[in-house]
Amino acid sequence: MTERSPLAPAAFPDLPPVAGVTARVSRARYKNWDRCDLTYVELSEGTAVAGVTTQSKCPSPEVEWCRDAIPLGSARALVVNAGNANAFTGHRGRAAVEAIAAKVANHLDCQPSDVFISSTGVIGVPLPVDKAEAGLEAAFAAAPCGWEDAATTIGTTDTYAKGARASAMIGGTRVELVGIIKGSGMIAPDMATMLGYIFTDAAIDPKLLQQMLSAANRTSFSCITVDSDTSTSDTVLAFATGKAGNAPLASMEDAGADAFAAALDDLCRQLAHLVVRDGEGATKFVEIAVEGAESDASAHRIALSIANSPLVKTAIAGEDANWGRVVMAIGKAGEPADRDRLSIRFGATQVASGGLAVEGYDEAPVAAHLKGQDIAIGVDLGLGDGRATVWTCDLTHGYISINADYRS
Amino acid sequence: MTERSPLAPAAFPDLPPVAGVTARVSRARYKNWDRCDLTYVELSEGTAVAGVTTQSKCPSPEVEWCRDAIPLGSARALVVNAGNANAFTGHRGRAAVEAIAAKVANHLDCQPSDVFISSTGVIGVPLPVDKAEAGLEAAFAAAPCGWEDAATTIGTTDTYAKGARASAMIGGTRVELVGIIKGSGMIAPDMATMLGYIFTDAAIDPKLLQQMLSAANRTSFSCITVDSDTSTSDTVLAFATGKAGNAPLASMEDAGADAFAAALDDLCRQLAHLVVRDGEGATKFVEIAVEGAESDASAHRIALSIANSPLVKTAIAGEDANWGRVVMAIGKAGEPADRDRLSIRFGATQVASGGLAVEGYDEAPVAAHLKGQDIAIGVDLGLGDGRATVWTCDLTHGYISINADYRS
Repeated sequence: MTERSPLAPAAFPDLPPVAGVTARVSRARYKNWDRCDLTYVELSEGTAVAGVTTQSKCPSPEVEWCRDAIPLGSARALVVNAGNANAFTGHRGRAAVEAIAAKVANHLDCQPSDVFISSTGVIGVPLPVDKAEAGLEAAFAAAPCGWEDAATTIGTTDTYAKGARASAMIGGTRVELVGIIKGSGMIAPDMATMLGYIFTDAAIDPKLLQQMLSAANRTSFSCITVDSDTSTSDTVLAFATGKAGNAPLASMEDAGADAFAAALDDLCRQLAHLVVRDGEGATKFVEIAVEGAESDASAHRIALSIANSPLVKTAIAGEDANWGRVVMAIGKAGEPADRDRLSIRFGATQVASGGLAVEGYDEAPVAAHLKGQDIAIGVDLGLGDGRATVWTCDLTHGYISINADYRS
Repeated sequence: MTERSPLAPAAFPDLPPVAGVTARVSRARYKNWDRCDLTYVELSEGTAVAGVTTQSKCPSPEVEWCRDAIPLGSARALVVNAGNANAFTGHRGRAAVEAIAAKVANHLDCQPSDVFISSTGVIGVPLPVDKAEAGLEAAFAAAPCGWEDAATTIGTTDTYAKGARASAMIGGTRVELVGIIKGSGMIAPDMATMLGYIFTDAAIDPKLLQQMLSAANRTSFSCITVDSDTSTSDTVLAFATGKAGNAPLASMEDAGADAFAAALDDLCRQLAHLVVRDGEGATKFVEIAVEGAESDASAHRIALSIANSPLVKTAIAGEDANWGRVVMAIGKAGEPADRDRLSIRFGATQVASGGLAVEGYDEAPVAAHLKGQDIAIGVDLGLGDGRATVWTCDLTHGYISINADYRS
């Protein structure tokens, strides 16, 4: 790992074990790395699964595999390969995925479709089946590891291991949720890849879990951007072992379903923020909150237009209260907006309102806010009730260095 | 002006006068610049006008003024202010535009709507009317200037003056077209602004001129991107004085209309390329040609997705044949694409085909191509007949320095 992001938390959090989940790591040696690169997670029988994957039209075979297996609702294992994304590798890439699933299914005596697989790293190089199989053999024989080892092993150019927890009470039973995630680390010529895994001991129907995960995704992973580039491999999976012993959740009307959904939302948002805080070259964590839009969807598109604007991101890197660039990004979003109703704040200070600069606004608190690491930009469109919040980071020389200065 | 872009042409081209067009420049002193910043162009009576403006929902009052005046079809003058974009300035910005139009209309004894106005520079500061009026007085009294002076005066952080020419034969009469343009220079905290002006002595009906300009725009200005950020002020205007004496063009069926449209296309493409070649921090000029898409519009969106991808642009800056990032950008475009039919070339060398890397392709010509200043990326989607070409530049430390390292 390269130098730890300045936005990283002080340490990896203290995460509880999740009953029914056993992780192991090994060295498949996909790259010339002096570290483990294969993560193997065994899940107890009866584990429910849900997932969301990249919208890319050119997904990796791992993504296609997961898309096919998620609707079946059950999982027994997760395999994550780091160092090779296996994307754009044709039938050989697909064959590697099938070989991994078959080997694990044989080991656990389960269906291949119960085995979930992700790969991250260089694209265009088929995942070597021999290395994957040897890595799996080593993982099968390895001692169980802790969450930090698993979170480290799924990483590529991440500068720190990322994990988070949440819990909920379901009818008097406490359930735990733990998540690990990697991204948006990249190294030339690798792709940005975000892979996230959530484990819970809650008993929950996979369809309900999917409904909750899809909802949580809309306000977490779908609300972050480092550089607007969508990977071929993005995947978030949630596994529920049911070992907590709660009365199984099957619909949002069940007691405790709200609490579990809230915990899942919270966990997903924590994980999403950890990814932004490791954005390439990031020195500022930026929250962009849009309200007063014609709809939530419109607010979301406007917020992303601001978050993806290189001019907004470089202004924040330069600690420059350049609200004109925010106006520009709103204007280009193609969404309903009325220049003369717009207001914009940096931190708590209104800088523009009613179509022009707030005359004589106090620049001192704005300058102080922009010197910090956590930046908040607020936009009120003054049109309706639509609102959305997204998170991003600034755009710095560090991003260029990571992605341009080194050759593949 | 800062250091001349490495992609700039060797010198400003030799441009002919256009009968009926007289340019003058003066110092309005909008900023503390030791240079002229107001360009005033007089157009002979009977001049036809057409124009295209930014799609931004938060346009400047100048853009709104031009949008209202263009459909009236006639022009007598153009005023371009450099150093202050007058955008997001409420009623005071609108009043400044009206004051300029009134003053010029009074001077020329014409309608205010015959006066076209653009401003470029810092946003959020109302254009000072007293400076504009004094600048206009000075311009009225100044000696006519050449194209290079006018092209220099409309610039802001442009690193070189940009002009181009074309000509056409209309029924035995030669007509001249000359264009000047500025952009995409920016300086923190200014906005990217592209302003382009085309002058011709051809006689042509304004509706036909508009039809031709809109068509030319679709394959020139709408096909360039430096950083995906759309300005509040982008404007391209075409003025036709009719002084060449050709039989007036009124429809595409008229003799010579095809030739004139082709010359206009050519001129717009030249001007558009000059803007990309002055892209902030640019060291490579990049052509992205997409074919085999389901439609031309789909090809255009995919080409722009590639051209706007920070990962593609940094790979090019790093002279890295990272076709995986091109796949990523195709995949995220949201347009029909089939990973397994895709092929990609750098320069003349096919690097990926049929969903995977071309085995053992010759890397030497690819590396040599990427070391050059003019980069060509070709994509064949293998789905249909849709095609589009767009132009962009690489993303370098220079871009970050220009937009983040300096404070407003």
